[in-house]
Amino acid sequence: MLIKLAIITAIALTGNVKSLRFRDPVAHTAPQQRSSHGRQYEGLMWDLAPEFNAAVVFAEHRFYGKSQPFGNESYKTVRNLGYLSSEQALADFALLVRHLKNKRLSIAQNSSVIAFGGSYGGMLAAWMRIKYPHLVEGSIASSAPVFWFTDMSKSVPEDAYNYIVKRSFVNAGCIERNILNGWKALENLSATISGRAYLNHLFRLDQKSYLNSSGDWVLLREYLEDIFESMAMVNYPYPTNYLAPLPGWPVKVACQFFKSNKTSNEDYAQSLFEIMNLYYNYTGERKAFCVNPEVCKDSAYEALGDTLGWPWQSCTEMVMQQCSSGPPNDFFIKNCPFTIGGQESQCMSVFGKLGYTKSLMRPHWSILNYGHQYPTATNIVFSNGYLDPWSAGGWSLKSEVTGPLISIIIKDGAHHYDLRGKHQLDTNSVKEARRLEKLSIKHWLKQAKLKFQKI
Amino acid sequence: MLIKLAIITAIALTGNVKSLRFRDPVAHTAPQQRSSHGRQYEGLMWDLAPEFNAAVVFAEHRFYGKSQPFGNESYKTVRNLGYLSSEQALADFALLVRHLKNKRLSIAQNSSVIAFGGSYGGMLAAWMRIKYPHLVEGSIASSAPVFWFTDMSKSVPEDAYNYIVKRSFVNAGCIERNILNGWKALENLSATISGRAYLNHLFRLDQKSYLNSSGDWVLLREYLEDIFESMAMVNYPYPTNYLAPLPGWPVKVACQFFKSNKTSNEDYAQSLFEIMNLYYNYTGERKAFCVNPEVCKDSAYEALGDTLGWPWQSCTEMVMQQCSSGPPNDFFIKNCPFTIGGQESQCMSVFGKLGYTKSLMRPHWSILNYGHQYPTATNIVFSNGYLDPWSAGGWSLKSEVTGPLISIIIKDGAHHYDLRGKHQLDTNSVKEARRLEKLSIKHWLKQAKLKFQKI
Repeated sequence: MLIKLAIITAIALTGNVKSLRFRDPVAHTAPQQRSSHGRQYEGLMWDLAPEFNAAVVFAEHRFYGKSQPFGNESYKTVRNLGYLSSEQALADFALLVRHLKNKRLSIAQNSSVIAFGGSYGGMLAAWMRIKYPHLVEGSIASSAPVFWFTDMSKSVPEDAYNYIVKRSFVNAGCIERNILNGWKALENLSATISGRAYLNHLFRLDQKSYLNSSGDWVLLREYLEDIFESMAMVNYPYPTNYLAPLPGWPVKVACQFFKSNKTSNEDYAQSLFEIMNLYYNYTGERKAFCVNPEVCKDSAYEALGDTLGWPWQSCTEMVMQQCSSGPPNDFFIKNCPFTIGGQESQCMSVFGKLGYTKSLMRPHWSILNYGHQYPTATNIVFSNGYLDPWSAGGWSLKSEVTGPLISIIIKDGAHHYDLRGKHQLDTNSVKEARRLEKLSIKHWLKQAKLKFQKI
Repeated sequence: MLIKLAIITAIALTGNVKSLRFRDPVAHTAPQQRSSHGRQYEGLMWDLAPEFNAAVVFAEHRFYGKSQPFGNESYKTVRNLGYLSSEQALADFALLVRHLKNKRLSIAQNSSVIAFGGSYGGMLAAWMRIKYPHLVEGSIASSAPVFWFTDMSKSVPEDAYNYIVKRSFVNAGCIERNILNGWKALENLSATISGRAYLNHLFRLDQKSYLNSSGDWVLLREYLEDIFESMAMVNYPYPTNYLAPLPGWPVKVACQFFKSNKTSNEDYAQSLFEIMNLYYNYTGERKAFCVNPEVCKDSAYEALGDTLGWPWQSCTEMVMQQCSSGPPNDFFIKNCPFTIGGQESQCMSVFGKLGYTKSLMRPHWSILNYGHQYPTATNIVFSNGYLDPWSAGGWSLKSEVTGPLISIIIKDGAHHYDLRGKHQLDTNSVKEARRLEKLSIKHWLKQAKLKFQKI
């Protein structure tokens, strides 16, 4: 499973900073988003800013995007990579708030700060309020799987991600058996030379990733599994371009291919091709696909430069237990149980050459550091989408208010849907989530004002 | 001014751990205390433990005492010293709590943890509750100058320490003019060969620190000023042995020497010798004194090993603005204003040879990291002694309850007096402070129990 945790973190300084909005924000985004940052994925902040007279500042996480502390050497050694951690990022944000108030936006000296974030950025937003409550008045933590860490395995099942993927697809009309038959068809076809030729042609495989032996179908299957896993994340009601250009409700569109029974291996394979073509070629420009990560590694994927950022964090502090149980839990290849040892081996294979050793993995640290519960935290909205596989690791699985902490489950929401800008096709549940988020921010700012008056 | 911030931090795990009290706690103490750790300075924890069925664990701060992460090399390079910081210490404590509960004291898995600390250890206790509230149910932060940092200069005057020293001495019967006359007498006597010979003999100076020129009296004065500054800190009502063996109410005893006017330089010098002899020779065993830090540096002082610990922290993260304004604020040599530049120069002179550069000083970081206010903190008792010069940097200058935070000012208390064990000569104010502390802990444990029941 490719873990795609987007990073969106914004800081809004509210009150008396009208017309000081930065004109050229540095978006702070995962590689997948980099080419397309802007109002589309951070729309909530831009929509709210005028009402609160807020300056919106995008805080780029060190080691992502343009923030490479050691330039081209940043990803070259573990010694440099040692500075890539959530704690360093939070400390950077703390210094940024100080810098903004004292230097860049001195008019905002007495302004409150609200942190926004989605996905990993949502964790950072929540943790910012937890660790630096004197700097940030409140946080909107959208789709933040804050409890998806090894020490919380009891409450966050390791196979929950793919369980939700399956649930989303089945609820959108996919017949599970048809997907399972698809995998079987790949295996069957891959067993013969003619079958492999058929698959190579059908899936428009790049010559360098041709299926050459009967076992190669697994590469193709893994590539396709990743598509299911990703599509569930970005199942928005209107056409978007977040991880890939997609139509509205892409899961529903994909399920057209898995609604009716087929009669041949070729037909089943065809339906799997359709979902691949939908996900990676919605614009119709793609000529070929490369499904073998070994030979594709110096392609567009790695060219992005910091695709190793999240893997590094997963190999040090962000150790999240995730695996597939296979049917009936999900329709993926069983690779459970997740083990620290297995994770270590993967990490060695990726980072060993840079000096990585197993002792750099601290699987217990995130929960120990940020908390398995938040006994003193206040002013955080945790929002999660019911359609989003990441929601299983969220602060709560249901909408609830626990004192000063709020959980919102967006019934028909995918991954940090609420952070997007207003859209005419928005569902009622996301409208309601954004309404509650705005109300919360208003309340926090009022609290802050009262506090300032007291002093 | 020598900054003597003791480090006492203890962790108590309460409930169901009867008779599991560690028998050989590693005391976590500043060098000054090392030879004398034990129940005397940590008495409160030992006194409370049986009532709460608590295990008392002393968490030694890395780089102090026996906890040398790089053995004998720990203090040899800035590269090693980079790991000496309050943040690393807090993270160690977090790991320690986990280790104790999971391994060493598994019977205490569901026990609550209360942090105790005095002075710098008090800051750590408070910050532990602020940064890791999910690990520590509450904190007793005794004499913790949490706000004595450069970014808080407006609320904590840089000359407050010596102002309180003077206040304590004057309130104990010292006549300020007599002390000032003492300094003048040193200067006058130091101007002549015979005068210097008199001083060398009177103060029983070690030959290597003889006053040889007319300016040398300043060395003697600084040595004596340090005694005033230290004695104010340890002005306990009964004989103690904290920084030095002393009688009860030592400031009052010292003030016997500064009560009446003298007629000669010799007499004034004599009264200064008396306070030195009281402070450094109460047991009467001392034959000679060395007042020149340049030539005394490889003496007992440096032999303690980690006397550079606090200076290192002061040169990196714990940058506390402290200086003397001279009369009428205090009776010391004026060296205000405190400047970052001045501090940097001192740091360069001490650590330059180890690779220290000015960029390692982060004067704003403590307040940015731990807070200039604690908007979400709960369950901390901040206690301070009115006689303690450090109290000026405390969370509050008056006894007050602000929601779940409590400030106690101990009227006749010196530096973390409340952490000491019960004594028949205890004042009512310290008894009351300890009563409130015990009540608070009871309340926190009750809260925790309710919380566990809910889950």
